[in-house]
Amino acid sequence: MDAVQRADSGHPGMPMGMADAAVVLWTRFLRFDPDHPDWFNRDRFVLSAGHGSMLLYSLLHLAGYDLSMDEIKRFRQLGSITPGHPEFGLTPGVETTTGPLGQGLANAIGMAAAERHLAARFNRPDFNLVDHRTFVIASDGDLMEGVTNEACSLAAHWKLGRLIVLYDDNGITIDGKTDLAFSEDVLLRYQALGWHTDRVDGHDPDAVEAAIEAALVDERPSLISCRTHIGYGSPNKQDTASAHGSPLGDDEIALTKEAMGWALEPFEAPPDVYDFMHQAADNGRKARRDWEALVRKFGDLHPDEHASFEASLGGKPPQGWTAKLDGAFETGSKVATRKASGSVLNALKPAWPNLIGGSADLTPSNNTETKDDSDFGASNYAGRYIRFGVREHAMASMMNGMNLHGGVRAYGGTFLIFSDYMRPAIRLAALMNVPTIFVFTHDSIGLGEDGPTHQPIEHLAALRAIPNLTVLRPADANETVICWDLAASLKGPAALALTRQSLPVLDSSAVAGARRGGYVLSDRDDAEVILIGTGSEVHLALAAQRVLDGEGIPSRVVSMPSIEVFDEQPTDYRERVLPRAVTARVSVEAAVTQGWHRFIGPTGVAVGLARFGESAPYQDVYEHLGITADAVVKAARQSLNASRSQ
Amino acid sequence: MDAVQRADSGHPGMPMGMADAAVVLWTRFLRFDPDHPDWFNRDRFVLSAGHGSMLLYSLLHLAGYDLSMDEIKRFRQLGSITPGHPEFGLTPGVETTTGPLGQGLANAIGMAAAERHLAARFNRPDFNLVDHRTFVIASDGDLMEGVTNEACSLAAHWKLGRLIVLYDDNGITIDGKTDLAFSEDVLLRYQALGWHTDRVDGHDPDAVEAAIEAALVDERPSLISCRTHIGYGSPNKQDTASAHGSPLGDDEIALTKEAMGWALEPFEAPPDVYDFMHQAADNGRKARRDWEALVRKFGDLHPDEHASFEASLGGKPPQGWTAKLDGAFETGSKVATRKASGSVLNALKPAWPNLIGGSADLTPSNNTETKDDSDFGASNYAGRYIRFGVREHAMASMMNGMNLHGGVRAYGGTFLIFSDYMRPAIRLAALMNVPTIFVFTHDSIGLGEDGPTHQPIEHLAALRAIPNLTVLRPADANETVICWDLAASLKGPAALALTRQSLPVLDSSAVAGARRGGYVLSDRDDAEVILIGTGSEVHLALAAQRVLDGEGIPSRVVSMPSIEVFDEQPTDYRERVLPRAVTARVSVEAAVTQGWHRFIGPTGVAVGLARFGESAPYQDVYEHLGITADAVVKAARQSLNASRSQ
Repeated sequence: MDAVQRADSGHPGMPMGMADAAVVLWTRFLRFDPDHPDWFNRDRFVLSAGHGSMLLYSLLHLAGYDLSMDEIKRFRQLGSITPGHPEFGLTPGVETTTGPLGQGLANAIGMAAAERHLAARFNRPDFNLVDHRTFVIASDGDLMEGVTNEACSLAAHWKLGRLIVLYDDNGITIDGKTDLAFSEDVLLRYQALGWHTDRVDGHDPDAVEAAIEAALVDERPSLISCRTHIGYGSPNKQDTASAHGSPLGDDEIALTKEAMGWALEPFEAPPDVYDFMHQAADNGRKARRDWEALVRKFGDLHPDEHASFEASLGGKPPQGWTAKLDGAFETGSKVATRKASGSVLNALKPAWPNLIGGSADLTPSNNTETKDDSDFGASNYAGRYIRFGVREHAMASMMNGMNLHGGVRAYGGTFLIFSDYMRPAIRLAALMNVPTIFVFTHDSIGLGEDGPTHQPIEHLAALRAIPNLTVLRPADANETVICWDLAASLKGPAALALTRQSLPVLDSSAVAGARRGGYVLSDRDDAEVILIGTGSEVHLALAAQRVLDGEGIPSRVVSMPSIEVFDEQPTDYRERVLPRAVTARVSVEAAVTQGWHRFIGPTGVAVGLARFGESAPYQDVYEHLGITADAVVKAARQSLNASRSQ
Repeated sequence: MDAVQRADSGHPGMPMGMADAAVVLWTRFLRFDPDHPDWFNRDRFVLSAGHGSMLLYSLLHLAGYDLSMDEIKRFRQLGSITPGHPEFGLTPGVETTTGPLGQGLANAIGMAAAERHLAARFNRPDFNLVDHRTFVIASDGDLMEGVTNEACSLAAHWKLGRLIVLYDDNGITIDGKTDLAFSEDVLLRYQALGWHTDRVDGHDPDAVEAAIEAALVDERPSLISCRTHIGYGSPNKQDTASAHGSPLGDDEIALTKEAMGWALEPFEAPPDVYDFMHQAADNGRKARRDWEALVRKFGDLHPDEHASFEASLGGKPPQGWTAKLDGAFETGSKVATRKASGSVLNALKPAWPNLIGGSADLTPSNNTETKDDSDFGASNYAGRYIRFGVREHAMASMMNGMNLHGGVRAYGGTFLIFSDYMRPAIRLAALMNVPTIFVFTHDSIGLGEDGPTHQPIEHLAALRAIPNLTVLRPADANETVICWDLAASLKGPAALALTRQSLPVLDSSAVAGARRGGYVLSDRDDAEVILIGTGSEVHLALAAQRVLDGEGIPSRVVSMPSIEVFDEQPTDYRERVLPRAVTARVSVEAAVTQGWHRFIGPTGVAVGLARFGESAPYQDVYEHLGITADAVVKAARQSLNASRSQ
């Protein structure tokens, strides 16, 4: 109440309503060590209803995390570690960034899946190295969002019994009572999905405890509806929509404290509350020490497996794996980059036990499965291939959760067009700088017959617009190897855009520069015009170069698989690739041209699309929409004229 | 089979599996007139599983729509009306563009809601002018997608009993058997949502008929699981994943025809099949004539209401409504554009009975409710305010369905950040050119304390990247009126980006040019530098202009509420606003700069963001991230220097 009041913004209602249940969870169940918030085997706690951040900050503060009362006082202020919504990486004890509803719960399901996977990989009799639970507080809004239905269907399919969700069933949303728009039988829906469910008075600590106890022994994931009062304890604001997102006001805070029997100054908490929470933390500290001793003992008895375990936690990609693909693709032969990506996975996945991933029901199209893969699931948690079903959004959000969990590195495939379904989660990967690898195949009108509903036009631009996300669109099989290597090495998320159609394999030595994001692929002395292409369209630029040769116009072809990587190169490198003096420039990409004018300047010509695609064999679509070598040649002449007349 | 074979691509399995059930629906229930595919009171039929397009094309062809066997032969070829996925506006009888899974079913729920709304508005005793049903064929994939859970929860909440979904429960997805990833009890889930459910053998016509009969009399929406065999009738491909998306092959087609007892050439259908389907069409023709007679009789008895009905079907926005807002906003006073948008709705909605809309549980923030609104719902279908709950994706998709239905014009609000949740549906609105109005408030870091999870950075660029979508970001209350007027007049979709924070009201005569997308808002003689701003940042440009005045640098401020509208203006107009000769240019927008270099050129400077936001009072965030008048002044000097040294 006090923090929201001082900030004059925020959400007091949910923290007040769920404090009772949260305290039961934190003091009687949750295993955590405030001194080691990154302890690997800690229980994960996700506040999916991120707007209730002050509940989480209060718990972290009271339990002894490095989050002082001064930070509580600076709630929602610049430079504080108590922002409006919890942010991963900023505040100790925050497991994931939440606020966009549904994401936290789906992240948590990814975490719970990662836990089961690693337990299957590393646990041995008497050595439960990976042995924690995942707890979530979720709101009505979380359960209305479609992404949670997708993820929760999988959670039950995989029997993630160590996942326990406390549902803040307070009957209030921003618009008013939930039954304005939400009259379904939520618990029955979760039973239908395959969950264990329960309903308790969220203000009855023993009832909450008993429900969690029962959930712990159920092999299904559990949803416990906690009937609560939003703004609990406030004489005039309890059970009102206004308690959701508005400060109570000084008078109402005084009345609330009076009603609670608290004679407390603002930002004052009684010492016995600290003592109570610190006791739980001390239990966690002991658990952490016991675990570390267990891991040491494991190391003594099983040094090799211990080394694997430590390596998994380290998370580093393997070295030298690309050597397995040297000479794998014959120059001049035709290979779709999605197929090359499949070859990469067959080389990389055996070399990197952390790598786990799958597809949103497009396995044969995405080439995301390797020949040695087995399916992850309740009967085989050690499996490293994940069948997400037709659930792109949950896939993305769960991959983020897996990568946040650590010990695994998650990738997942779908068509590039369906990146739209995943955008909220892609954005959060970027915001958190979590290294999720998005494998997007069928990356242009080159997918052909499936037509405009399936042909991405705006998606490359839309993905490049996201800060921190590295978009990689290789021009051939060899660039694909390099792009995967870049993606694996990144600290943050990567999106690979791969073709459905076959592309000629370029000489592997010629494409080595792909590592720098953009490079001179094919040059002529005193080039007068620069042709910049990405992915499949690089081959149009190369074909155009040959035509221009015949016309006596020397040109340079720049392949630009990643604008983000290129932008990070030193100025002098970028100047060498795109010399200021050459102002005749053409970009070619089978997509909207948005963003290319930065590279081609006012006398440049962008060959691209300003409309949706067509259903037809892909060669016909390219021709019909004017994405051709001829169009690049014409654009080159036009740009040369424009630059000469400047 | 034949069409997929000739195209050498497509999806034979679903059309073969659902043909039995579809024929029952089309011949015994569906009310349609092939000669008048746009007959208003026709039953709506949505093939949500759009990959089964050949089922729909076959039905349309056999029933006598203007879809010849030649077009069937040109399946998936350039210029045909039989593209890979059904496309609204291209093929008669196609009610909505489907393929991206989940969208069709959610569209259909919007159609069914529109039907109930219009029935409540216009039907009178003995005059059921609006009285049709909405039928859907949906697949496993549709029901896995989160958007359908969102929309189906609302369908039950609103008791849309005239909605009947045939679920193609064939147990197969692209990856293999559905139980690889989908083991929930789907019917129980739908019961939990509040649906009537049933399960039948999808190859038993009488069972399908009986289930539809029972569904018709249930007041709840109905989901009928049709247990079917994918690729039904194919001796070797039936019940296999390969039947989903691959041609059967000539040999297998021959075997299938043999097994079916058909001695038919490719693309041959027996005359009695045509006769059978034409009979159903004739029933529909009669129903259409009866309805037209009813409407005429209604016109005789109730001329005013008849005129209203016809006007609603016409769909035109009212004229002159903006006059109500003349002088509503005092120049120099401070009004958030989201508040101005609320004022617009209070003026526009009473003048335009078609306008219906709401918010995804952000009503008080989005200002989407007017003072006379009442909630749409089972007890008040005439209500014009829609509480979508925390279901942005379903909101967008259902709005598309409402607008496709006709007779209404749907708008819906959420925060701009959550446009990410809606992108698949926004894209389809653009692809179909359906005039959905997306109201996005809290459009920048100006939302302040809620922080980076809620501050859109990349969303303006990402929306502008979508072809056919008009993005409108007004700079003040008066531009907001103009932008709403533009949105209401568009044939296609519009996205309004509106501020949370208050902005000074500009002189209404000065902003009249907003109608042209971009215009000179404030000019100086012989301006040496052009400052281009959108929305709230126009005021930074104006402040910078005053500073530059003091430095003796004459500048021009261009307000650019809509790049798309500006791009449509004649060249000479655009040249007048942005004269080629003035190469010193600055753009300012509190967002990624992607897309602005097209306007500012190589000597221009884009003031914007290349990172995510911060949680703090909004003035602090602007200052901290360098989106200030000072930054614009500095950029102006920098651009002047660069342009002079060219």
